[in-house]
Formats: sequence, structure tokens, C-alpha cells
Amino acid sequence: MDTLSYSLAMAGTVAFAVTAVLAVSKQGIDLFGACVLGIITAIGGGTIRDLILDVPIFWAIDLNYIWVGLFSSLATFMAIPFFKRRFIHSLMLYVDGLGASLFAIQAMDKVADLQFGLPVAPILLGVITAIGGGVTRDILAGRKTLIMTRELYATPVLFGCILFSIISHVFPEHRATWATVCTGIIFGIRSAAIHWKLSVPDWLMTKTAEDETL
Amino acid sequence: MDTLSYSLAMAGTVAFAVTAVLAVSKQGIDLFGACVLGIITAIGGGTIRDLILDVPIFWAIDLNYIWVGLFSSLATFMAIPFFKRRFIHSLMLYVDGLGASLFAIQAMDKVADLQFGLPVAPILLGVITAIGGGVTRDILAGRKTLIMTRELYATPVLFGCILFSIISHVFPEHRATWATVCTGIIFGIRSAAIHWKLSVPDWLMTKTAEDETL
Amino acid sequence: MDTLSYSLAMAGTVAFAVTAVLAVSKQGIDLFGACVLGIITAIGGGTIRDLILDVPIFWAIDLNYIWVGLFSSLATFMAIPFFKRRFIHSLMLYVDGLGASLFAIQAMDKVADLQFGLPVAPILLGVITAIGGGVTRDILAGRKTLIMTRELYATPVLFGCILFSIISHVFPEHRATWATVCTGIIFGIRSAAIHWKLSVPDWLMTKTAEDETL
Repeated sequence: MDTLSYSLAMAGTVAFAVTAVLAVSKQGIDLFGACVLGIITAIGGGTIRDLILDVPIFWAIDLNYIWVGLFSSLATFMAIPFFKRRFIHSLMLYVDGLGASLFAIQAMDKVADLQFGLPVAPILLGVITAIGGGVTRDILAGRKTLIMTRELYATPVLFGCILFSIISHVFPEHRATWATVCTGIIFGIRSAAIHWKLSVPDWLMTKTAEDETL
Repeated sequence: MDTLSYSLAMAGTVAFAVTAVLAVSKQGIDLFGACVLGIITAIGGGTIRDLILDVPIFWAIDLNYIWVGLFSSLATFMAIPFFKRRFIHSLMLYVDGLGASLFAIQAMDKVADLQFGLPVAPILLGVITAIGGGVTRDILAGRKTLIMTRELYATPVLFGCILFSIISHVFPEHRATWATVCTGIIFGIRSAAIHWKLSVPDWLMTKTAEDETL
Repeated sequence: MDTLSYSLAMAGTVAFAVTAVLAVSKQGIDLFGACVLGIITAIGGGTIRDLILDVPIFWAIDLNYIWVGLFSSLATFMAIPFFKRRFIHSLMLYVDGLGASLFAIQAMDKVADLQFGLPVAPILLGVITAIGGGVTRDILAGRKTLIMTRELYATPVLFGCILFSIISHVFPEHRATWATVCTGIIFGIRSAAIHWKLSVPDWLMTKTAEDETL
């Protein structure tokens, strides 16, 4: 993995942990809970992926993911008012979206390299890597999981993963380019969702539920 | 696995996905959520089993399980009124029960073949394979899990698994026959439970809870 | 593992199962649910640890853990009034605390022996081994998880694990002694928390939540 990807992955890890602690902080958690939920959100998705792939867990090979998750959680816990500032919180939401985009597409590459269940398993594991940590956090914190909310988070990830799978099958020689493009597309949709507070449209829902506010 | 077993396993996979989407549809889920919950219900139990056994995940070897789970979820999401028709819904409940019976006993065979933790681990993993997917769905959807309801679902599976373990130990030469018989017994009890709306009797409960309606 | 450690581990397994069944019994569970929740609480944490370490699951090698978990759950289910007696319940809470201390430090030894993600992964997996079963039980039973309560349970475990990691790094020649000392420290804090009904102090919380009673 080159330096840019690695830096972005670390930025994504920071944002996953920070947004996790902010999301559960109003429920009243202690220092231990903040660190657990921050770290699990940051590394949970990739852990499930590596368990299913039966490869060494990524954070056991590169402990930076744990350290970064831990210190981000600690810092957020200790300075919640700072991280709740409009600009910082907003920035973190965007970096969180970038992290999700990046982790999803990187996971697809990892899965495809192992020739694991092509073509559908990479999509499945791409989505799991991006949202698995957040879903586990919601379960542990007793919150409604991402899957049951109308937040436009998982759907763009799924869309980008399917797109990457198709394009890189049709034009295999430009795989690295398509990876960047699809990461950008997921991030773009997610950014639009954050900026304009978009949610999943009614025609993609089983019923016209009352507008849910997370 | 012969053709009949395979066809029944696929029918069970369809029923698991369809009943999952129907069960959560009234909570208001989007297309992504329906597919995730349908697929997880269909393959979740076997995935946990394979992780514990440390063998390749079954759906990575035979992607049909994913495709069937995906298309069943999609079809149900798009045609909920059709699948909610009395006859179709009822049929799906019975096929779901057949799937659970089949998956439990097949899992016991798989575990026993690996000489894994005989005699108790096959029973444990048989039950996990049958109900693990449904339990995971309930957790993700924020519903009361199967384990906490009075529905007569897990208990017949457990009973059949224990019976199969004992009989096939005493008369090992007729293992395949006992497998069929025990699958039939689980399915029979589950069918009776669906038909007569039976629930776990009071003497098997810690307290006489008010009759719970799912 | 010597005889004393093994006996204590078995006592801890009994206490994990008994306290689990007692904790959920008022919600109204059936025999199957009691056994599932008792066994999962007893072996869940170690199972997650072994999955992440990619080593054979401990209870598949030594089935006594399953049998002890099963019979403890069964006995508790059948004699709830007995186990709810002040003295027995209190005894079980202390043995449960001893079990958590023991499992955490033993897990750290296991992880460190495998040279897995030193120095931070042993701490992480020590905590997961001690509380993973209880957290899984809470999720399955639809209860607020340990992580979100003010109960002084996970925090002393974390503290003891960090202490053991530091001391045994600085003075590696007395590792076995430090293991015993740190187990004792965790157990001591936990016992004090049970005896004086201590909870996590306000300054370790994100907000001064109303005193929660489990």
C-alpha cells in the first residue's frame, strides 16, 4: 500500500473512532466504553472480513490501527466540546465518509487478490468492511443499527462496490484507476448526503415511514 | 451431497431469506437493508459454524447460496403483497422449518466428519447453524431474538440434534437413515407448532409470562 | 495449566453460567434459552479470542467447559429460588469476578505466547475474553450491554491487563508472579465493587447520568 493510501486509511480510522465516540457520548458512557466503542468501530469491519477470509487480522500485523483508534477515542472522550464544534464535527463526518469509501474498495482488492468467491464475495466483504464496525458499535450501544435507518450510508457503499466489480471485470487493465474512481463516487454521494441531509428515497423503502431523525 | 439434499438446501435458503424480509418489512427497511437481512438470515448460521470449525466458509465455495439469498430477498422486497398472501406466507414458513431441520442435521454430519468436539460440539453447532442466521437478523433489526421468545423453533431443533447424536452413536451403521428420520422429526414438530400456533409450554419457562405475540 | 488454575477456571465457568441465567431469568426464558445464554456467557469471550488468534477453539479441545456450562445452566434453571438465596447469589457474584480476573490474565498469557500483536493485542484480547461472553448474552437477551452501564466490571479488568502488560515487560523474569498479583488486583477491585456497590465514578463518564440501577 502506498503512502497516500496509508495516510488516508489512518485518517479514516481517526474519523471512525471520533464519530463513534461522539455518536454514543450523549447516552452517558465511561472512559472504558468510549475506548471500546471507538476501537471497535474503527477496526470491527476489517476484523470480520479477515475472519471470513481466514487471513491474519490486519491490526495484529500493523498495530497502528489500534493505537490510532485508541488515541482518537481517548482524545474525543476528553475533549467532547471541542470535537462537537460545528466545523470539527462536520470535518469528521466527511473524513468518516472518505474512510468508508476507501475501506470498502481496498477490501474488495484484498478479497479479489485471494480469488475468494468471485465475483460476489468481494462486494459482500467490501460492504461489511465499510459498515461492520459501525453496526457492531450500534449493537453494543443499544442503538438502532445503520441497516434500519434511512441514513444514506450503506447504499452508496453498495452501489460503488457493485460498480467497481463490473467495471474492473470489463476493463481489467485499469483496475487501479477504477478503484480510485469508485472510491470517489462513493465519497461523492456520501458527501452530498451529509451536505444536503439526504436520506434513502421513499421508493427504496418498504413503507413511507415517518422521517427518522438519528 | 446428492441432488435431493441440495435442492432442499436451496429451498431452505429461499425460505430463510423470504421469511426474514417479511418479518422486518413492517419496520420500514430500504432495499439495501432487505438484501443484507435476507442474505444474513440465509447464510449467517452456517458462517458462524464454519468460522468455529476453521474450515472454508461454505458460501465462498458455492456462491449459489449468496445468489439465491440475494434474489429471494430482492424478489420479496419488490413483491411484498404477493409474499404476504396467506398461502405463500404459510408455505414459506413450512419450507423455513424444513430448512432449519435440514441445516441442523447436515451441520451435525459436517462437524462429526471433522471429529470436532464429539459428542457435544455437533449438537451445539447444529443448533447454531439452524438458528444463528435468524438470531443475527433479529439483533441487526433490533427485534427480540428467537432465544427470548416463546416460539417453538429452537427447542425442536435442539431436541432433534440430541436425538440424532444419541441414536447415531448407538446404531452407527444406519447413520444416513437416522439423519433423515431426525430431520423429519424436527420438521414435524415445527410444522405442528406453525399449524396449531403452539408455543413453549409453561413448565419449560422460568415464569408464566403473559402470552407473547411476535 | 496446573490443577489449581484449572479448578479455578472451572469454578469461573460455573459462576459465569449461573449468574447469566439468574440475570435473564426475570425476563421469562425457556429451558433452551437458559442453556444457550448460560453456555454463551461461559465460553463466548474465549471463543472470540480464539477466532481472532486463529487457534483451535478451547472448548473443542476440552469439552469440560461446555459440560460445566451446560449443567450449571440446567441446575440454575431448575433451582432458581435456591440460586437466588442471598448467600449463594452473592458467592456466585464473587466467583464470577474471580473468573473474569483469571480468564483475562490467562488470555493475555496465551496471546503473548503466540507473539500476537505485542504489546497491545494481549490487553485487547484479555478484556474481550473476560467480558465478551457477558456482552454477547446481553445482546441476545436484549439487555443494555455491560459497556453501557456504570457497573465497575470492565474497567478493573482493563486496568489489571494494562498493569500486567507493563510490569511483565519491565520485569519479565517474574511473569508468573505478576500474573497472580494482577489477577488478585482485578479480583480485589471487583470484590470491593460488589461489596460496597461501587460504580464508575462521575469523572470517568461523559455526563453525570442519573444513577443507573441494573
